[in-house]
Amino acid sequence: MYQNIKELQNWLNETGHDVGYISDYHAISYLTGFESDPIERILALVLFPQADPFIFAPALEVEAVKEAGWPYPVYGYQDSQNPFALIGDHIKALTHQTKNWAVEQGTLTLDRAKRIQQAVPDAQFNGDITPLIERMRLIKTASEIEKMHHAGDDADRAFQFGFDALAEGKSELEVMAALEYHIKASGVPAMSFETLVQFGQHAANPHGSTGQTKLQNGDLALFDLGTVYDGYVSDSTRTVAFKQVSDHQRDIYNVVLEAQLAAQDAVKPGMTAGELDGIARDVITKAGYGEYFVHRLGHGLGSSVHESIQIAENNELVLEPGMAFSIEPGIYIPGDLGIRIEDSIVLTENGADSFTHSSKELQIID
Amino acid sequence: MYQNIKELQNWLNETGHDVGYISDYHAISYLTGFESDPIERILALVLFPQADPFIFAPALEVEAVKEAGWPYPVYGYQDSQNPFALIGDHIKALTHQTKNWAVEQGTLTLDRAKRIQQAVPDAQFNGDITPLIERMRLIKTASEIEKMHHAGDDADRAFQFGFDALAEGKSELEVMAALEYHIKASGVPAMSFETLVQFGQHAANPHGSTGQTKLQNGDLALFDLGTVYDGYVSDSTRTVAFKQVSDHQRDIYNVVLEAQLAAQDAVKPGMTAGELDGIARDVITKAGYGEYFVHRLGHGLGSSVHESIQIAENNELVLEPGMAFSIEPGIYIPGDLGIRIEDSIVLTENGADSFTHSSKELQIID
Repeated sequence: MYQNIKELQNWLNETGHDVGYISDYHAISYLTGFESDPIERILALVLFPQADPFIFAPALEVEAVKEAGWPYPVYGYQDSQNPFALIGDHIKALTHQTKNWAVEQGTLTLDRAKRIQQAVPDAQFNGDITPLIERMRLIKTASEIEKMHHAGDDADRAFQFGFDALAEGKSELEVMAALEYHIKASGVPAMSFETLVQFGQHAANPHGSTGQTKLQNGDLALFDLGTVYDGYVSDSTRTVAFKQVSDHQRDIYNVVLEAQLAAQDAVKPGMTAGELDGIARDVITKAGYGEYFVHRLGHGLGSSVHESIQIAENNELVLEPGMAFSIEPGIYIPGDLGIRIEDSIVLTENGADSFTHSSKELQIID
Repeated sequence: MYQNIKELQNWLNETGHDVGYISDYHAISYLTGFESDPIERILALVLFPQADPFIFAPALEVEAVKEAGWPYPVYGYQDSQNPFALIGDHIKALTHQTKNWAVEQGTLTLDRAKRIQQAVPDAQFNGDITPLIERMRLIKTASEIEKMHHAGDDADRAFQFGFDALAEGKSELEVMAALEYHIKASGVPAMSFETLVQFGQHAANPHGSTGQTKLQNGDLALFDLGTVYDGYVSDSTRTVAFKQVSDHQRDIYNVVLEAQLAAQDAVKPGMTAGELDGIARDVITKAGYGEYFVHRLGHGLGSSVHESIQIAENNELVLEPGMAFSIEPGIYIPGDLGIRIEDSIVLTENGADSFTHSSKELQIID
């Protein structure tokens, strides 16, 4: 794992940066094995072209950093101290060159940049270390893929718990609670995001939330869920029918399914993200539902549920073996229904290797 | 609710700002009633000294913004579009003055600031709109306090579900899953953070996570949890003994309890946050456990579980009626035990009004 840190040090050296400052906790987890969301506290991994790196963490996290196996220094701070002054002191003890910083341009806020500058007045934040870290995270190793397969298996089990919990008159929240109870009691430590359960026309809001809508015969039920396994996540969606299904529901379901399968079957290294989005979008547009597919086809995932890949129209990103992302077309007709089908996959030389295997044919749950 | 927006407009006017840019989704929820975490997408509330404000949101959220009752324009964008170029166009259509921006210095990243500047080249981000919004959020209205009391009642019920689930050999995860199942099935839509259940010496890591540790007779069991009610949160902690308790455990428990009660009984308008922290810290320090109380005494809460108030050493913030915050001393002895007792309260002229009422005396669960 520390190979990546060595690579970042080399990059700092080659590009003439004096300091590398990383504070996104997912990136820190990826690079160091220490995972913790500091919320509004400061957690940072500080790198140099020559000197050893250090982690700067709230005092109450210092033991956990050591337990995670971090072999370099970890410096703690109390809530009553000024963390940026301390970081500045540690940096100045390690190097006399403190001008050219490579930071995460998409994470570092204007406020924190100012506070660092108060501690290290000549600091300039022109470098961006994110692309190199994202590039590392983009291409999954065999060990990461194995963990994601495990998370996918857990997600498959979670769907079944959800389907089993469906009963007439039950609320979305009750079904979600039962699903999460069974999957957590079976050893899954956490969901990778708030489980979404939506019934009937409530599913027409693709970013709505699980609520008090009660299940009725003939409803479609949408489950969008993910689990966490050893720091890696799954993210998958199934839509099933309860008791019975109308021709109208089945027709639209089959459009979404055709779009999902078309993209998942066609995806290949060398294709662009925009081309892949287009394969699914064309199916839905030709069926006359284009205006109801209101989001991108997919997003990257790995140690977090949203990584940098965007499977979206016009995105020229070239897909490569080792990239992991979701393929999740949907049709959402306000006042009527919402259907989404999603697998997350890792791309291989031969195409998609899906992390989830729950049937995508329309299931009618009795 | 829109009174606050009017106040922000007046402030922009008085301070000579041309544009107010708000993108923290908790702040947007507070100001507009529309709540959604856009994750990595762009969600913004844009204000002007004279013109009407607008919300800029992902296309798939536009309907939900309208449903939340927002009476001003809402502009959507597709994933394939450049959101900042669109925001720039909307702003330039509404005002010719685009130089002096008041932004959230602690939310806006260097990257997004740069992208806005590409769309609005004369934009300067020197103003900070956060203090005024935080000031509004800091002092709770009667309606907000009522919601927080409701969330507190739910948290009290959740504790009981958790205590009822304790059984020898059960894992922290199993107990957490049972607790969340019962509280969600009873109608609570979401926890305000990942429920923490820790047994025995595992509780000595105050920011550890719920895991596979199994409950044994004589363990202390720590529950730190929160619920959401109509956009407002609870956050509370109880530590109970399972089957039996040693004198050692009871002695340390009583130190934490004495510290918690001392602070909660003493808190008054006019006191500083640092003084309040000191009241609890002194009790623990005098008992000889000062080095094991490794975090601040509390934090603000309301529509989010961490708001700006820090009840921490040396903090000169003067406490005022209407402020809501947690009071949560703890003692964590590595390899031995961890105990924390937490109520969240709103400050009144007469002192603390607690949102939770579960007993704080040491309970032995059979």
